[in-house]
Parts: sequence; C-alpha cells; structure tokens
Amino acid sequence: MDAIYLDNQSNTKLDERVFVAMLPYFKDNYGNPQSMYSLGAEAKNALDAARLKTAALIGAQESEIVFVSCGSEANNLAVKGAATAAKARGRHIIVSAIEHFSVLQAAKRLSQEGFEVTEIPVDRHGLVSLEDVAKAVRPDTILVSIQHANTEIGTIQPIEEIGRVIKEKNVLFHTDAVCTAGTIPLDVKKVGADLLTLSGSQFYGPKGAAALYIRKGVRVTPQIDGGIQEGGKRSGTENLPAIVGLGKACEIARNEMASNAEKMVLLRNRLIGRIPEKIEHVYLNGHPEKRLPGNVNFSVEFIEGEGMFLLLDLKGIMASSGSACASKALKMSHVLTATGVDAAVGQGSLLFTLSRHNTPEDVDYVLAELPAVVDKLRAMSPLYAHFKKTGQRRDAGPGTDYEHEHAHEEN
Amino acid sequence: MDAIYLDNQSNTKLDERVFVAMLPYFKDNYGNPQSMYSLGAEAKNALDAARLKTAALIGAQESEIVFVSCGSEANNLAVKGAATAAKARGRHIIVSAIEHFSVLQAAKRLSQEGFEVTEIPVDRHGLVSLEDVAKAVRPDTILVSIQHANTEIGTIQPIEEIGRVIKEKNVLFHTDAVCTAGTIPLDVKKVGADLLTLSGSQFYGPKGAAALYIRKGVRVTPQIDGGIQEGGKRSGTENLPAIVGLGKACEIARNEMASNAEKMVLLRNRLIGRIPEKIEHVYLNGHPEKRLPGNVNFSVEFIEGEGMFLLLDLKGIMASSGSACASKALKMSHVLTATGVDAAVGQGSLLFTLSRHNTPEDVDYVLAELPAVVDKLRAMSPLYAHFKKTGQRRDAGPGTDYEHEHAHEEN
Repeated sequence: MDAIYLDNQSNTKLDERVFVAMLPYFKDNYGNPQSMYSLGAEAKNALDAARLKTAALIGAQESEIVFVSCGSEANNLAVKGAATAAKARGRHIIVSAIEHFSVLQAAKRLSQEGFEVTEIPVDRHGLVSLEDVAKAVRPDTILVSIQHANTEIGTIQPIEEIGRVIKEKNVLFHTDAVCTAGTIPLDVKKVGADLLTLSGSQFYGPKGAAALYIRKGVRVTPQIDGGIQEGGKRSGTENLPAIVGLGKACEIARNEMASNAEKMVLLRNRLIGRIPEKIEHVYLNGHPEKRLPGNVNFSVEFIEGEGMFLLLDLKGIMASSGSACASKALKMSHVLTATGVDAAVGQGSLLFTLSRHNTPEDVDYVLAELPAVVDKLRAMSPLYAHFKKTGQRRDAGPGTDYEHEHAHEEN
Repeated sequence: MDAIYLDNQSNTKLDERVFVAMLPYFKDNYGNPQSMYSLGAEAKNALDAARLKTAALIGAQESEIVFVSCGSEANNLAVKGAATAAKARGRHIIVSAIEHFSVLQAAKRLSQEGFEVTEIPVDRHGLVSLEDVAKAVRPDTILVSIQHANTEIGTIQPIEEIGRVIKEKNVLFHTDAVCTAGTIPLDVKKVGADLLTLSGSQFYGPKGAAALYIRKGVRVTPQIDGGIQEGGKRSGTENLPAIVGLGKACEIARNEMASNAEKMVLLRNRLIGRIPEKIEHVYLNGHPEKRLPGNVNFSVEFIEGEGMFLLLDLKGIMASSGSACASKALKMSHVLTATGVDAAVGQGSLLFTLSRHNTPEDVDYVLAELPAVVDKLRAMSPLYAHFKKTGQRRDAGPGTDYEHEHAHEEN
C-alpha cells in the first residue's frame, strides 16, 4: 500500500484542480502584472481574480488582501509591520505563549528594538483566557497577536470573544489563522481582526503564496521595500502561478471545507478514542472538543519521539512531533511546555494531522501498527523498566503531582 | 505570427526543462524538508541539490546560499540585514543612484532608523567611478551596495575593481546581480562580494525563488524571523518546487549562458545599430559596450512612452519603459535622471530586453514596424510640430546645452 501521510500541518498535498489552474501561468502567461502590454494585462486580471477569491474566503474586501510568500512572512509583516507603524502610540505588544515561532520570534525581534512583549499563558488545554487578555492590555499596548488555532495541539481559541475584548480596548488585533483558514469557517468581521494570516499550503494550495489580511485603514510598515506591488505593502515580482493557485484553493475550500471537516472529524475522533484503548500511558494534548478537525496529539510516556517517527516511517506512516519549523530540533515543544506537560512525557509527543485525503483504512492501519511500535520502544526504555519494576516514574520528584496532572485525560 | 516578447528584464519565459524538474515537487513529493520521515528526507535532498547548483553558478559554497522568495526580498535582506547586524560598527551605508528600488527603498528605510545613506552618482553611461566609491567611504561606513548591471539601461559596472576598492576599506560589499547571474559569467570570489543577489526568473527559472549569497562569516539579521529554515536566516516553509526550479535554471545557465549571450549580443547590436539609421532623434541610453547582452534602451524624442507601448502591443511587440517595478508609474525613470537624460526626452524611453528565445526575425519585424509607430506618434506631437517649424526644442531654455548633451550618441 502507499505510505500514509499524516503530517498535513506541515504541508498538504496540492489539489489537482489547483495545479491545473496554475499551469497556464507557468507556461504561456509569463507576463508581469505591472506591465502595460496584453500579456501583462492578462497577468493582472489573474492576480485580481485570485485576490477576490482569497478575500471571499474570509469575508474581506479585495483591497484588504496582501499576497506574500508564506505564512511566516505574513506573520512577520503583521507583527513587525503593525507594531512599527503604530510605535508613536506605544511600544507594548501581547502574544500568547503558544504562537507560531514566526510570531514569537518577530515579537522577540521587536523587544530588541525597544518594544515590550507580554506573553499570556494558556491553560492545560491550550486555551487563552479572556481575563488574561483583558488584564494584559495597558495604555501603551498597540497590538495583540493571538492565533486562531494551534498547529500542534489543535486547540481552537474562542477567537470572536477574544476579538471583542481586544476591540473594546481599542488595540490592533492580529490572528494567525494559518491552521483554520480554508479548514473551518472564518469571517474577519466576526473575528474583529485587523490583521489575519492565511496560507494556501495548509488547505491543498501551493507553496509560495500566502496572504495577510489588513483591514482597510490599518497601517503596516512594509518589511520588503521596493516596488509598487501589493499597494506598496509588499514589493517584489508577484509569484503569479502560486497566487493563482492560492486563489483557486480558497475557492475550492469555500465549497468543500464543511464536508472535508465532517469527514476528518470522524477519523480524528476514532484515533483519539481508540489509541488510549490500545496503548497505556498516553495522554491527549490540546482541547478535547475545541479542536481542529484533523488534529490528533498524544504524549506517549516512556519513549522518545524520534524513535517513534522512524519506526512509523518504516511502517509507511508519516507523522510529526509538532511544529514543522521545529521538528528537527527534537526539543520539548514550547506549546506542550505552555500547557504544563511534563518534560519526560512531552518528549514522546506524537502528532497525526489528517487531510481530506485520509481514509478510514488509513486510521485502521495506524491503530493496527502503532501499539507494536510503542511496545518495541518501551521494551528498550530503562525508564519503562524502572516503572514496571517499582511503579514509580523516575522523574516524578517531590512537588510533581504527575498522575493528577494527567488524570483528566486518562478518565 | 506570435507576439514578440521583448520585456525579459521583467521576467523570462520558464524553461521547459526547469518546469519538468519542478513537477515532482508539486505532485508526488509534497513533503516538508524539515520532517524526519522519508518524504521529508527526499525533499531535503532536493533542497540540498538545488543549493549546490545555485552555489556552483557563482563560485560559492552551498552553505553560503540562502533561498528567499524573490530578488527584492534578497536585496532587502542584504541591505537591511547586513546594516542592522553591523550597526555597532557604524551607521553609514553607500548605494549608487541607479540601484533597483528594492535597494534604494531598503536604504531609505534604514535612513529612517538612524542610518545615513550616501548615494553615489553615475556618469552619462551609467557607470560608477572608482574614485567616487573610494571617496564616499567613511570610518563609520559598514556597507556598500552597488549593482552588477542595470536592468534598465544595461550598463555593466566594473564590479571586480569596485569590489577591490571596497575590500581595501574593510567594508561589507553587496552587489545586486539579478540582471547578470545566469546571463554572464560571475564569480563571487573575483567580485569580492560579501553579499550577492540572484533571481531565477531572470534566466528562465520560475517565479517564487531567488537567492542571497552570504559569504561565510558575514552576519545578517533575518528579516523573516521564525523557524529553523535556511540556517535561521530566512524562516518559512521552503517553496520547494520553485527552489528546485531555480537550481535547475542555474545548472542550465552554467552550460548555456555563453552561447545564449553570444546570440543575444548579435540581435542587440543589430537593433542598436539599425534603429538610429531608421529613426531620427533617438539616443541610446546606457554604455555602448559595457552592456547586458539583451539590453536595448533608446530615448525617442518628441513622443511619450505610453503611446509607443500601446501601439507596439497592437503590432504584437511587448516592450517596457524601464524597471518592471515602476513601469506603470510613467514617471521619468530615476536611472535616466541619474545619467543626465533630459526629462522631455526621457519620457519617450523605449526598452527592449531580449532573451535566448528571440530570433533574427523578431528583430527584423521590430525594425520594420517601429519607424511607423514613431512617425504616427510624432505626427500627433505639438512638440515635434514646433521643432519642425522652428528647429527649436521647446524645453531647451537658457543653460540647457541640449544638443551637446546628446552629441555623443548622435555621432
């Protein structure tokens, strides 16, 4: 059988219809949208059409969409660009502790330039509290950046409520919606977002194009200066094939995301329900219900992630340990740390992210193969041997109420 | 006949072999190079191979290549990134007056942040003088950015000599080689560049990928912060199909650029030689010999650019008025201004940029059609009527030694 791809948070497989839509812009229409001749005008029309489709996905106006090269670029433009443009009003920004690295590192860069950054915590399910958001806002706060959902643990924030709290404070609100745009319904007006990041490669679109929604009237300092593209907000020759592909992916997502999500939720729930039945000492990460349709994340105690991925890969199952941007680092993820997962357990984090391409047979195969993989690794684990012999977790020292921490997931 | 594309400075037509090389990375290999499973490893191998080919084109090491989304991003990363990283040593940077907007505007952004920018002039052919470069360097100068060649007037700078002057002063040297890399021979060691920008879309590669060469040991502050990609210097999911395409385009260019250039020079010289024979009052812009193989730029007196492009487009000839990033602005180009072209004449600037796809028949067709286009527009021009009647140029007031300015090109 073909290998089973369960790392869709890294990147989804390109939709064939998207590829077909992109094709003419590789081959025949290589004009520059900024040029006056006919081939340029055709390119400009294609650019406009993609902008309209992208705007429609999130309830925005065309003029509010800025095309960029990837989600990380959009997050950098949002955080650095909005903060820099508003710095006369204040130099304090707020982010959640479980933002994507492109938000966290952009904020860190700002902190080196005289901005202050407040990181608000999340609860054990990864949820931000409205009170924490409200309390963190100060008179000099200019920007709050809180993601719509988390790529790693799948938790979906109460983003509309968060948006209301922030708008009452008259502060700019950016949400990184890379995990949700094109996957679950999303309307910038309802969210109350001033800035919103989306990326086509998360919903069967191509790599090389993403978008930042910038609400009309919101000022953003460009991060790539130069030409006249994207209303001066993002210079550089437009990656037209990828942008056309993003537009097409947005169009398809509008029509199909509901049925895709329905299907993925069934598969997700089957994995989430059955894995703990088949394997002892596994703990679900993220929120049990407020969760991305395709996200399955377990901490698997007594083993390390690396061995698990390698053995799963040999079985033809491609999984991940967390954020694609950090998976090779093999460190305990900052997201799991923020939700209070014990370091010893977090190292065995297992992330399956589904797409519309996955089938019930994929899930059955994973459920059939995973227990033996875990058994094999635990058989090699001195920690597990110690636990079996003594009933004690070696790392559970005084003050670590370990069993209690995870009791909610074992019930 | 098919329309004739003579706007290759905006963008070149994608090489079919490049497209074929990219295909698997759209379709089957959608893995993330940062992932540990086999599809990720294949992606990583493809990324490494592309990096090797890109490095080989310019005599660099693999580890010195950072992939970005476009030439403008690379120029921004070079100028802002290197200046920011070196600001403890000084805050003065030097650029030439005819740099691409992505360099000029990046420098302007730095000037808003406490840097000082010196713009050095060019002569009437667009050449920077070594003396001007040497004189402009101060004790607090940290970076000089001078392009290898100019996209609009085609002038190729004596870049190795410029590099030597700058290196003697112990200052970082960036060169924007977007117009030359893949088109004429280029070796970073000979140039003495610390940073060099190249873009695949200028030599039959795809949109969406470009590279910044960063010499080993040179520090650059990332402009897109976040993940672990590109050694931390440029975060965001790698646009693997485009990067693979860039690598392939570099490989092909190494083998074929000499024969392509030879062919283009013949066509270029025929246009440059014949246009003034067929049309009065046209003046070549740029250097007569030190010139990009495909660049033809004339000022056509007594007419405005816009009408000329529209009429040429109707004849099936796609041309440009200058930088792709500014062509819609229809202002007198900053490059022509810097070379001292009179504003009245510069508005009639005509830019043909050739590629390996152009043929002698294309050139014959342009030479056959262009005179009638110019005649038609001049017949509608009050300035031309005035000149015909009085022998006087209306704008030639006291102190404007107009005929003298252009005498060298009319000879």
